[in-house]
Amino acid sequence: MSDIRSKFLEVYSVLKSELLNDPAFEFSHDSRQWVERMLDYNVPGGKLNRGLSVIDSYKLLKEGKELTNDEVFLTCALGWCIEWLQAYFLVLDDIMDNSVTRRGQPCWFRQPKVGMIAVNDGLILRNHIPRILKKHFREKPYYVDLLDLFNEVEFQTTSGQMIDLITTLVGEKDLSKYSLTLHRRIVQYKTAYYSFYLPVACALLMAGEILENHIIVKDILVEMGTYFQVQDDYLDCFGHPEVIGKVGTDIEDFKCSWLVVKALERCNEEQKKLLYENYGKADQARVEKVKELYKVLDLQGVFVEYEKETYERLLNSIETHPSKAVQAVLKSFLSKIYKRQK
Amino acid sequence: MSDIRSKFLEVYSVLKSELLNDPAFEFSHDSRQWVERMLDYNVPGGKLNRGLSVIDSYKLLKEGKELTNDEVFLTCALGWCIEWLQAYFLVLDDIMDNSVTRRGQPCWFRQPKVGMIAVNDGLILRNHIPRILKKHFREKPYYVDLLDLFNEVEFQTTSGQMIDLITTLVGEKDLSKYSLTLHRRIVQYKTAYYSFYLPVACALLMAGEILENHIIVKDILVEMGTYFQVQDDYLDCFGHPEVIGKVGTDIEDFKCSWLVVKALERCNEEQKKLLYENYGKADQARVEKVKELYKVLDLQGVFVEYEKETYERLLNSIETHPSKAVQAVLKSFLSKIYKRQK
Repeated sequence: MSDIRSKFLEVYSVLKSELLNDPAFEFSHDSRQWVERMLDYNVPGGKLNRGLSVIDSYKLLKEGKELTNDEVFLTCALGWCIEWLQAYFLVLDDIMDNSVTRRGQPCWFRQPKVGMIAVNDGLILRNHIPRILKKHFREKPYYVDLLDLFNEVEFQTTSGQMIDLITTLVGEKDLSKYSLTLHRRIVQYKTAYYSFYLPVACALLMAGEILENHIIVKDILVEMGTYFQVQDDYLDCFGHPEVIGKVGTDIEDFKCSWLVVKALERCNEEQKKLLYENYGKADQARVEKVKELYKVLDLQGVFVEYEKETYERLLNSIETHPSKAVQAVLKSFLSKIYKRQK
Repeated sequence: MSDIRSKFLEVYSVLKSELLNDPAFEFSHDSRQWVERMLDYNVPGGKLNRGLSVIDSYKLLKEGKELTNDEVFLTCALGWCIEWLQAYFLVLDDIMDNSVTRRGQPCWFRQPKVGMIAVNDGLILRNHIPRILKKHFREKPYYVDLLDLFNEVEFQTTSGQMIDLITTLVGEKDLSKYSLTLHRRIVQYKTAYYSFYLPVACALLMAGEILENHIIVKDILVEMGTYFQVQDDYLDCFGHPEVIGKVGTDIEDFKCSWLVVKALERCNEEQKKLLYENYGKADQARVEKVKELYKVLDLQGVFVEYEKETYERLLNSIETHPSKAVQAVLKSFLSKIYKRQK
């Protein structure tokens, strides 16, 4: 595993160097240096789970056959495209949310001299993806499907981000608009497609598969992505900051979190009043009142039950899939997230 | 011409309605309404020159043959893709420049309730382009070339925007970094590719041409786009606000304008000192001093000479092209911008 990771990071250097010498643009010294610093700051510093999972998935689809050097490079390149996509979303999300830190360092737009140039840097990150795809996949029979895939998933993610942003506007006026249906829709579009479906879809295309034949795989992965986000919502409140690496602020931020939705489902009139009065306020005492209510409503127990049920349901769905290799891919994803603490 | 314009606007309604019912996303009532308002506010309100020129160009390439209804629709759709691209750039540029008005109305991000959601709206606009292309061009033999074209041109535009932004940072410390080479590079990438080359390239692809065979056409159009931007820089200072529809602020904003570059080329040490002391300051008296210097250096005369020379050079290049139809396309662009006052 650490072997894959070091190979993966090696490919990052190759891709970066190609992008900094892209003949479609005449770099000046200053602009080349700017892009290099921007890439190093924003692209490789995360957990790299999404990117690495392309390689893992492709290996499982090849059922243990040794990958050629070429296949290793190409799976890594696709993995990096997803990491570039993630970096693009994060740089711009941090501006929209006016965030302070990301991955343990100040957000890119807060760096001296960067500021609103970060908006354009986000677009540069996004534009690097088709440059990577064109350079390494232009002659592949699945090139056009790869472009369509990235385009569709990006469209879905920005659409999910839109309902998240609008919902928070609406929710601030009326908490009762928050529902499980809405939560599910936000999570599915904003997170699940690009984090769970996209890596596997990339691996399937490389393995010569046609994505239209894999709707069930897509459904299962989107379901898994939803479960992943519910965990995220849960850990934001009940996780240990020293383990998850951040202090959650979903309550202060008026987020349409799985927890507030479940609380609304379960509370009586009096508790509802308490929730309306204290949710979404940047005041520690009010936040504590909301957390107290979550405990009274036993949301921890509700979550444990949800996790158990979801895991079993997903496992059952996976086991009905006709291909053992595809089953292995899906089980690998599931095992990585089941009962995660961070 | 007004006939084409009304047809073009009709196609806008069709495309908008398709996007608002895109099966790749489950719209809520609120989000559908949000996108519709955002599109109407940002997409169709400009001069539409870029979009309409796809149709004009395609007609000229067909040498007067009547277009089928299908061809009319498709050229309009490609024209709108360029207008969508333009809207995406403008929404985000206005945020980066902290602008106040655009096309005679407040910038989108300044609308109540919008604010930083405008960043994501910019991305939504950008993501609509591949949705339009997929819906209407997926089965065309040139579909993949169309995707590559839009990707490459967008990459070049954001790269040009990057050097513009970085240059302004550097220039603030050292005006002597501004040069004709730098000006040319910014303009070529930031404006010329998407405003001049892209519409013609779209028309060429629809006409069954291979873009690699049209490097000369590309060079001429990029040259024309550069000339167009020099005019823009000139009009920003010497145009009539009531005609160009805005009050120029390039001097205050420390822009790497063609005028300041020419002034640096022509001034003596004393004048240079004056320029260094007064350029890039939001102070009307200082701005007037710079304008005075421009007049003393006869930049109006220099511009007239530049315009004449450029026009003749472009016309000569155009007339060496082997295809009369292509010549007609290029001449049509040139005649639209030669000696423009707005």
